Amino acid sequence: MKLLEERIVKDGIFKEGGILKVDSFLNHCMDIDLISELGKEFHRLFADCGINKILTIEASGIGIACIAAQYFNVPVVFAKKVQSKNLDGEVYTSTVHSYTHDKEYVIRVSKKFLTENDRVLIIDDFLAKGKAIFGLLDIIRQSGATLCGAGICIEKGFQEGGRIIREMGINLHSLAIVDMDADGNMIFKEDH
Amino acid sequence: MKLLEERIVKDGIFKEGGILKVDSFLNHCMDIDLISELGKEFHRLFADCGINKILTIEASGIGIACIAAQYFNVPVVFAKKVQSKNLDGEVYTSTVHSYTHDKEYVIRVSKKFLTENDRVLIIDDFLAKGKAIFGLLDIIRQSGATLCGAGICIEKGFQEGGRIIREMGINLHSLAIVDMDADGNMIFKEDH
Repeated sequence: MKLLEERIVKDGIFKEGGILKVDSFLNHCMDIDLISELGKEFHRLFADCGINKILTIEASGIGIACIAAQYFNVPVVFAKKVQSKNLDGEVYTSTVHSYTHDKEYVIRVSKKFLTENDRVLIIDDFLAKGKAIFGLLDIIRQSGATLCGAGICIEKGFQEGGRIIREMGINLHSLAIVDMDADGNMIFKEDH
Repeated sequence: MKLLEERIVKDGIFKEGGILKVDSFLNHCMDIDLISELGKEFHRLFADCGINKILTIEASGIGIACIAAQYFNVPVVFAKKVQSKNLDGEVYTSTVHSYTHDKEYVIRVSKKFLTENDRVLIIDDFLAKGKAIFGLLDIIRQSGATLCGAGICIEKGFQEGGRIIREMGINLHSLAIVDMDADGNMIFKEDH
């Protein structure tokens, strides 16, 4: 998506080791006009899938999922990362390794909010090694819900998450795929 | 706000000890139509304050803040609760005690995204003892930004946060204030 690629070039910071910082518009300070356009694009890509629920994960996915959900007219369910007194009752859980935070954590979704009657679109801000998405896929599998697709704002094409998810046959669309050329410079790949 | 009060009566679960669960529409499964109405109401209440930034905190505040921000045409900055590799550089920090999670945690906002030129509206889903808001107030004070007000979806009127914040002279509006009568039943108070 041209608009997002241009914004990454303008305001993203690409650092050695493949670190991409987009905190000035996507995941710390959030440009709501931009994110509305991303939401519209997710709707264009997945409008025909009969989606009735968007699933995301704390924390930075939530705002993007909520804005996208306005175009689908569906609720958002977000997987929680911490055990909370307010999350009692029956829950689906899965364990996720975070490379950003360098630890394992358990994600939880209440069984009340994901069932076999649901047709689910996953939305998240980033896809790198894919560990958060694999956790959400595990929870969807446990619930018996139908996975209709996954919409990602920025995929790191030089890490394996996107390849694995596509090889699983999942309908994955990334609005920008960032890759590195032989000199370590940032380039964009097409989303196929 | 009548719409929110009616929804709390219909789908909220009020339990002994003043625990109110609204996870079926506000902070785990999110009813986006409802939250859009809350966002419009925040805009009605704070439209004349010259707000140029909305500040919230991970995690459940983010979606509400993002949807509200569409009516203000301003960006959202959310305070982060975990140390992340992606949050380097200069940050404002404050320590918050969470009663829900029963621990202390540090919240962080990058200095890039909050400055003395900002006119800030705080938005959050819940206000009980007010610890998260006090952390955000501390960060706003450090930044030199102007606090224009605080918009809360649900305030627990039987806990002290709202009273303390109003006594500080802060322009606080809660869309629903839940209280308890002498028998421990849930009632609503007017927002003044």
